[in-house]
Amino acid sequence: MDDNELRQLTRDTAKRLFGTPKDGEGIYALWKEFDPELARQFSMFITGRLYAREILTQRERELCAVGALAVLNFWDELRVHCGAALNAGATSKEIAEVIFQMATYGGVPCMVEGLRTLKSVLQERGEWPN
Amino acid sequence: MDDNELRQLTRDTAKRLFGTPKDGEGIYALWKEFDPELARQFSMFITGRLYAREILTQRERELCAVGALAVLNFWDELRVHCGAALNAGATSKEIAEVIFQMATYGGVPCMVEGLRTLKSVLQERGEWPN
Amino acid sequence: MDDNELRQLTRDTAKRLFGTPKDGEGIYALWKEFDPELARQFSMFITGRLYAREILTQRERELCAVGALAVLNFWDELRVHCGAALNAGATSKEIAEVIFQMATYGGVPCMVEGLRTLKSVLQERGEWPN
Amino acid sequence: MDDNELRQLTRDTAKRLFGTPKDGEGIYALWKEFDPELARQFSMFITGRLYAREILTQRERELCAVGALAVLNFWDELRVHCGAALNAGATSKEIAEVIFQMATYGGVPCMVEGLRTLKSVLQERGEWPN
Amino acid sequence: MDDNELRQLTRDTAKRLFGTPKDGEGIYALWKEFDPELARQFSMFITGRLYAREILTQRERELCAVGALAVLNFWDELRVHCGAALNAGATSKEIAEVIFQMATYGGVPCMVEGLRTLKSVLQERGEWPN
Amino acid sequence: MDDNELRQLTRDTAKRLFGTPKDGEGIYALWKEFDPELARQFSMFITGRLYAREILTQRERELCAVGALAVLNFWDELRVHCGAALNAGATSKEIAEVIFQMATYGGVPCMVEGLRTLKSVLQERGEWPN
Repeated sequence: MDDNELRQLTRDTAKRLFGTPKDGEGIYALWKEFDPELARQFSMFITGRLYAREILTQRERELCAVGALAVLNFWDELRVHCGAALNAGATSKEIAEVIFQMATYGGVPCMVEGLRTLKSVLQERGEWPN
Repeated sequence: MDDNELRQLTRDTAKRLFGTPKDGEGIYALWKEFDPELARQFSMFITGRLYAREILTQRERELCAVGALAVLNFWDELRVHCGAALNAGATSKEIAEVIFQMATYGGVPCMVEGLRTLKSVLQERGEWPN
Repeated sequence: MDDNELRQLTRDTAKRLFGTPKDGEGIYALWKEFDPELARQFSMFITGRLYAREILTQRERELCAVGALAVLNFWDELRVHCGAALNAGATSKEIAEVIFQMATYGGVPCMVEGLRTLKSVLQERGEWPN
Repeated sequence: MDDNELRQLTRDTAKRLFGTPKDGEGIYALWKEFDPELARQFSMFITGRLYAREILTQRERELCAVGALAVLNFWDELRVHCGAALNAGATSKEIAEVIFQMATYGGVPCMVEGLRTLKSVLQERGEWPN
Repeated sequence: MDDNELRQLTRDTAKRLFGTPKDGEGIYALWKEFDPELARQFSMFITGRLYAREILTQRERELCAVGALAVLNFWDELRVHCGAALNAGATSKEIAEVIFQMATYGGVPCMVEGLRTLKSVLQERGEWPN
Repeated sequence: MDDNELRQLTRDTAKRLFGTPKDGEGIYALWKEFDPELARQFSMFITGRLYAREILTQRERELCAVGALAVLNFWDELRVHCGAALNAGATSKEIAEVIFQMATYGGVPCMVEGLRTLKSVLQERGEWPN
């Protein structure tokens, strides 16, 4: 895969999972403000090299991301990946189920905040009550 | 669901995921040494009430468990759930893929130790090289 | 203990520790929005099966909860359990003492945020300056 | 409190909680190998300034330490403080109870490893089965 | 070093790193509200005994603080130490570089929030765009 | 920078920091067993794109890595980066100083285990007592 193909794959994968970013918003814009070239490398590595792989479906990959981000208490990122999970075809019931299960590994408080995050994503998308 | 049904469901789910426990081994035996009744309640809640649910497949549920346990650095539990994921139909490539992805959320060191754990589970089962 | 007794014990314990919840507020209401039956099981397990036990006093149990929630940086839950610790008879000096000690295990920043949380709980209850 | 009193208080508190250290063993000896003066300051601050305080009883303080160390997965330190909790008058049932409760905040895996640690401390002291 | 010298060293080090605190603000004021004497001991230990040491330069020490606080997700403290790092002579490019590197150990989300925190510190100081 | 240059830069940086790996050992070998191409991408990204950058010196970068790995309790990786810090010109006193400081952010137990790890690295290199 040459550099142009990787760039295209990164762009397509990002768009499918996270939607079209608004200008100057989002985490990629933040990275670029500090170091445009390193920002490009990070983005191509994570989205192009990792997220674009096809051993798992995008839906499975995003459900795993939801679980990991909940137990790590990364709420902003969880918000992004709840959206990506929905975009990749997971239902809100399935995402909630992953979060419920996480109480076992990351404690009940991460389940509480995880559900709160999911609910607010669903509200923003006009998909609540689910 | 009455108490007997819950007990049966717990036992069936545990067996399907984790195999038949050897006498006096495993974490359930440890819990019982400290408090048999609470041990029973914990087991029925986690395995019977949570793991037995059918909104996600057992395979999906176990892939999410693998990811969460890797980023939390719970290596003994990860070992158990790598086995459960394989028992539930996940391939070793899929489990490795979840662990590779976790570098993004939990750092590269959790990916390293996660792959090491998976490899040792595969070796014990005689399924290595994968 | 049959199901009705457990339900009653859960309700009594919750009320004693956390006070009477306002309708539609609190974490139990959130859980129910996603899955009423699982919410009920979670609540009965944690509050009825665990918190209601009498090997430790409620005051001791809540002091331990305060410490654990501080080192885990679960600030919303810490707020709830600072209130529960006060309800169970701990003084604000004792709760602060637990949080001071936590600097040793969870780092100074968790002590800072922990004290900030405690102060705001005391202010809300009209018990500040302590 | 002058420096000599603080030193004596540190020594007395350490002995009461952790017993008489064997020469060249223990964490204080390790610190001293790297920097004797800083080691002395650390020890006097943590043991003399914090642990020696009397707002909580030593038993309460140690039960809180057990909970925090379990959810932080600090197993070597948990071992030390399980011993200190027993020395300060907590029963093994009470220590186990704290660890059981920690499943709620730090996840079930920390309860499993916590109980394993407690059991091994009790075995070493010849107080198992409890 | 006698108590007066330690107090002076603490004050000088704090001022050099964190600037002159406004009355009643800052974390030291919070500690004092709960326990003035313990607050003094904490401050003298951390700032006077640890931060004032000269084995590392203040700039190196603060760069290490930035990294650790980012991977631990202590954002308020990170804000304080981004300022201290700048005060100690680190450039914003160097601080950003530490935060970029932390993605490897603490996950990409801690890099995102870390850069966001640094940007806001630079904006407050009127040093943005950097 | 084309692919060949990146590969060379990765190899040079890895050798300077971590020494020549023995065949089939080390974490890169582990990654390759699961997925050779992804292993190559991970290695080139982390070592070639990140560690090879020159905004910080290698010595500064490694001191920051030591601090972050200590507070995250990643002991195997800490071992590797203690070696890299020494290879990059840091003294054992400086590395110990970073670890002492980490008590403030990551708790005293991470300082204890961090010093233990450093001591064992120094012993293996025949540089102990330091």
